[in-house]
Amino acid sequence: MFGIFSYGIASPRVGYKTGDYVLDLEVVGLLGFFRDLSVDPAVFAQPALNNFIALGNTAWVAVQDRIQSLLNDPEQPLASIHDQVFIDLSGVTMHLPVQIGDYTDFYAGIEHARNVGLMFRPNGDPLLPNYRHLPVAYHGRASSIVVSGTPVKRPDGQFLRHDQPVFGPTEALDFELELGLIIGRKTPQGTPVPTDEAEDCIFGVVLFNDWSARDIQRWEYQPLGPFLAKNFASTMSAWVLPFYQLEAARIAGPAQEPTPLPYLQTRQPGHFDIHLEVFLQPANGDEVLLSQSNARHLYWNFAQMIAHHTINGCNLNIGDVLASGTISAPAAENSPAGTGTFGSLLELSWGGQKPVTLPDGSTRTYLHDGDTITLRGWIETATGRLELGEARGQIVG
Amino acid sequence: MFGIFSYGIASPRVGYKTGDYVLDLEVVGLLGFFRDLSVDPAVFAQPALNNFIALGNTAWVAVQDRIQSLLNDPEQPLASIHDQVFIDLSGVTMHLPVQIGDYTDFYAGIEHARNVGLMFRPNGDPLLPNYRHLPVAYHGRASSIVVSGTPVKRPDGQFLRHDQPVFGPTEALDFELELGLIIGRKTPQGTPVPTDEAEDCIFGVVLFNDWSARDIQRWEYQPLGPFLAKNFASTMSAWVLPFYQLEAARIAGPAQEPTPLPYLQTRQPGHFDIHLEVFLQPANGDEVLLSQSNARHLYWNFAQMIAHHTINGCNLNIGDVLASGTISAPAAENSPAGTGTFGSLLELSWGGQKPVTLPDGSTRTYLHDGDTITLRGWIETATGRLELGEARGQIVG
Repeated sequence: MFGIFSYGIASPRVGYKTGDYVLDLEVVGLLGFFRDLSVDPAVFAQPALNNFIALGNTAWVAVQDRIQSLLNDPEQPLASIHDQVFIDLSGVTMHLPVQIGDYTDFYAGIEHARNVGLMFRPNGDPLLPNYRHLPVAYHGRASSIVVSGTPVKRPDGQFLRHDQPVFGPTEALDFELELGLIIGRKTPQGTPVPTDEAEDCIFGVVLFNDWSARDIQRWEYQPLGPFLAKNFASTMSAWVLPFYQLEAARIAGPAQEPTPLPYLQTRQPGHFDIHLEVFLQPANGDEVLLSQSNARHLYWNFAQMIAHHTINGCNLNIGDVLASGTISAPAAENSPAGTGTFGSLLELSWGGQKPVTLPDGSTRTYLHDGDTITLRGWIETATGRLELGEARGQIVG
Repeated sequence: MFGIFSYGIASPRVGYKTGDYVLDLEVVGLLGFFRDLSVDPAVFAQPALNNFIALGNTAWVAVQDRIQSLLNDPEQPLASIHDQVFIDLSGVTMHLPVQIGDYTDFYAGIEHARNVGLMFRPNGDPLLPNYRHLPVAYHGRASSIVVSGTPVKRPDGQFLRHDQPVFGPTEALDFELELGLIIGRKTPQGTPVPTDEAEDCIFGVVLFNDWSARDIQRWEYQPLGPFLAKNFASTMSAWVLPFYQLEAARIAGPAQEPTPLPYLQTRQPGHFDIHLEVFLQPANGDEVLLSQSNARHLYWNFAQMIAHHTINGCNLNIGDVLASGTISAPAAENSPAGTGTFGSLLELSWGGQKPVTLPDGSTRTYLHDGDTITLRGWIETATGRLELGEARGQIVG
């Protein structure tokens, strides 16, 4: 996985995570190990991955292959310079991996959409009429996306109490379990990206926590969607898993009925079997597994999201983030004793009606100050688990 | 007004509009005219105003004052170098004035909100319950904002026909008459900006056309707001009027009942008497005045928008754009014979029920291919009209 790290007096730069170490790619490059790949080491001496990403798909794969060759070479070509190139993870500071242009949040987790519909529109079809026809999405705030590990301040805002607007710290602070795509290609304004080419626009994947203040959201969101309920902070993994590494986890998605319009149809399976977990650690307690889900529960796949996003000519830039929307699993599935399958506390506590009881006896409808939420994920490969970067944040009052 | 221009072999750079000329500020700076202001001419040799804006309020005013002094000096200190510093406007190419971080669109035009409510919710209060309690807003797409003069391609998309989703070019392409604020200060995440300090965060003001595809919007926008209906393109003035120049137009806004929560209260009048006009030019016809409005019809003022945007800790960056929302005037007001007062065709044609007839006899419910929409605006000052930069775009099929 690629990320941006700093340590000692070294300024933020591109690193590659290998075990408990970060490989300093600028130094590896300056030593000549990427010379025949025509990759200028200067792209690694940057505070964001964008310049490296701009080299294109071929370069991403070539660099990663070269790194793997160096790491696996029995002659250990990096051994003599171990301390210059392998930096202990425990001593580094991680930074946001990309300079983000625009951030879009989809709503492609059908179980989440259905649960929200069941809670808020109990008498109608829980899914709105457009849900199975197009990947619903909205624009989010790029400036407030923070790297994993950054504390998240409980936001103040306006919400209703006894039907009167009041002001104060949110009383319904929630997480949302999502995947984020890092866009790896600039597309021209006015030119849609067909589903067949859409995955080529993805550099990598991160875990993404779309923190949400449900009370603020409920009061503000009509008619133009969520705003202050979401834009105080979103947490993204520090480490970006290159997209092509998900290949081992590629699966067919759910049957899509009705058949989508042609511009949304895909020829190859476009879903991924990515295991997802949410952990909660109270201020003075142990981390507990709160929920388990899987990216296969998305209704729309990544190619469809990108094709839809660009069908009107909207242009993408390197470093844009497309998040999936909250990924919940069906209630009965994948749930060891006591563990939920939903990707938000809104669902786990069913709108606050069924507080979740933690092993320490405390309960949660929404998050308490001091709580730390960590999102983790992995895929199974022939050689074992391949983990995604984790997304972690602690609530501070 | 400040903007980014290029000409001949000169790369995009900062210019100052004066009459029919652009003053090349890098050259003026290199000749030493800003030296005592401690303004490095390098900030003008940039393809965006961001570096200049980053110098801060004092520098913006000092540079503009110096420019005015040079232009008004009876000894004409620039006369001997006229051709090096004054570039004829007719020969320059204008570029987007800022590198935009995030773009937020408010909904602060109460006449527009009321008109939309009357059309779509004819049986209830046209204003939703939250409207007078908070400045409703949503995040828009920054990547597709284009500079005035850029053609706008009619977007394809999904919309309903006889209650069935179909795909094709939008059949309800509209403009929206808005003002845009260019943010001039980076604010820290987690720290709200009080109303008293909010205007200090504004560098300047532009005209802004939030092009909208009404059929796409109607089908996609539930429950998370507009997405593809808006993000194919928005048009911004090339020239940015420094915010403090609006001082001559400062007025009190409408009475706000109920009284807003304390964080939204302002001590000084925060509205501005900015005259606004929309012109339509058919493909082979003359430009006609389609509508006249005024920024005093905004319900929420700029300081309130910024205070609300940041109350939850959301951070602003230099170059962010905050648009006002569509500014319509009341129907009876400000309307010479045959000219409307609404800031969109949705309202002017009342949802397509009352087509607008142009002088050439053609009608419009929504925009035709070849139509050019130009937004213009000005304030009255002691020395005459002070114009804003215009926002112009032609629809291409």
